[in-house]
Amino acid sequence: MPETTTIKLSFCTGNPHKVAEVQAAFAQKLPGYVIEQQKIPLQELQADTLEEIAIFKLQSISQHLRPPFFIEDAGFFVDDVLRGFPGVYSHYVMDTLGCEGILKLLGDSSNRKAHFEAVIALMDNDNIIHTFKGVNQGTVSLEARGTSGFGFDPVFISDDTPGKTFAEIGMDAKNRISHRSRALEKLIEFYRR
Amino acid sequence: MPETTTIKLSFCTGNPHKVAEVQAAFAQKLPGYVIEQQKIPLQELQADTLEEIAIFKLQSISQHLRPPFFIEDAGFFVDDVLRGFPGVYSHYVMDTLGCEGILKLLGDSSNRKAHFEAVIALMDNDNIIHTFKGVNQGTVSLEARGTSGFGFDPVFISDDTPGKTFAEIGMDAKNRISHRSRALEKLIEFYRR
Repeated sequence: MPETTTIKLSFCTGNPHKVAEVQAAFAQKLPGYVIEQQKIPLQELQADTLEEIAIFKLQSISQHLRPPFFIEDAGFFVDDVLRGFPGVYSHYVMDTLGCEGILKLLGDSSNRKAHFEAVIALMDNDNIIHTFKGVNQGTVSLEARGTSGFGFDPVFISDDTPGKTFAEIGMDAKNRISHRSRALEKLIEFYRR
Repeated sequence: MPETTTIKLSFCTGNPHKVAEVQAAFAQKLPGYVIEQQKIPLQELQADTLEEIAIFKLQSISQHLRPPFFIEDAGFFVDDVLRGFPGVYSHYVMDTLGCEGILKLLGDSSNRKAHFEAVIALMDNDNIIHTFKGVNQGTVSLEARGTSGFGFDPVFISDDTPGKTFAEIGMDAKNRISHRSRALEKLIEFYRR
């Protein structure tokens, strides 16, 4: 019988839905890896990029947990007209202004270019940091539409699914093309090498 | 002749205008204190309050500098309609959305309540942290007006100077009533005791 090894990877997040998504992806594409949720209260830095924030978090986690462990963070960026806003502050802006705030800020602007971005940051067994970025390009819709998903999904139309917002295409379709799934794909690729 | 002692206080900021304002206030109200500017690159936390961010900064400064030292941070809060936005993220929102963004978000809302807030955080000789908060209550104007000051001054009408924005009353008048001067007054009061 061939020897089977199990490798444990800690995913530091408070969100059980993200854990389930990552576990399902590993189970399908790279069996033998066990994803364990770790709930560690994390401080978030104010910085320009998701990567900077993620690296700061990894370093603070390393005081409490043995690697390998990873985190995931995402943001919604309205590229030209709002100069990347809300970007790394998407959670805060969702809580204060919501989708309606984004629509008001854009008004009837014809340039509605936007993207979602996710960064997975990993500290490996040798305490080396790796980051994996996933992006989905698209535009801001003229009004909020759809009920699935969360966050800015109702006002984002991916270039991959023209005419429908992320909240209208359903979770399964979204999970196949989302920024998060693309970052996750790169993490799995890293461990497959 | 009476003995004169000079007490040195470090002000950690990259902004020479703030240093000049603090030096002038101490020179007038509490001579014998020397305010020295210290330029230390600081990391900013994502948090709900200016106090949390300030305390995090003090703790990181304490790895490089001997107390007593202090920092100052400020924010613009649109209280009800924008749930406190842009608050602790005022610098970022100024850079991305500017005053126009605030006006768009408020639209023709009749509730335009807003305030400026400044927090000075001090680490004293005994490594004890003290915070001093200054507030100026007012409303958001219907359009940007005035050229003095900076940040959200052109869209803020203080209850202390009805009908004129912070950018229309001139720096001297603003410095007498501003959130920053009120926090500074409390710091000076602390050392006067």
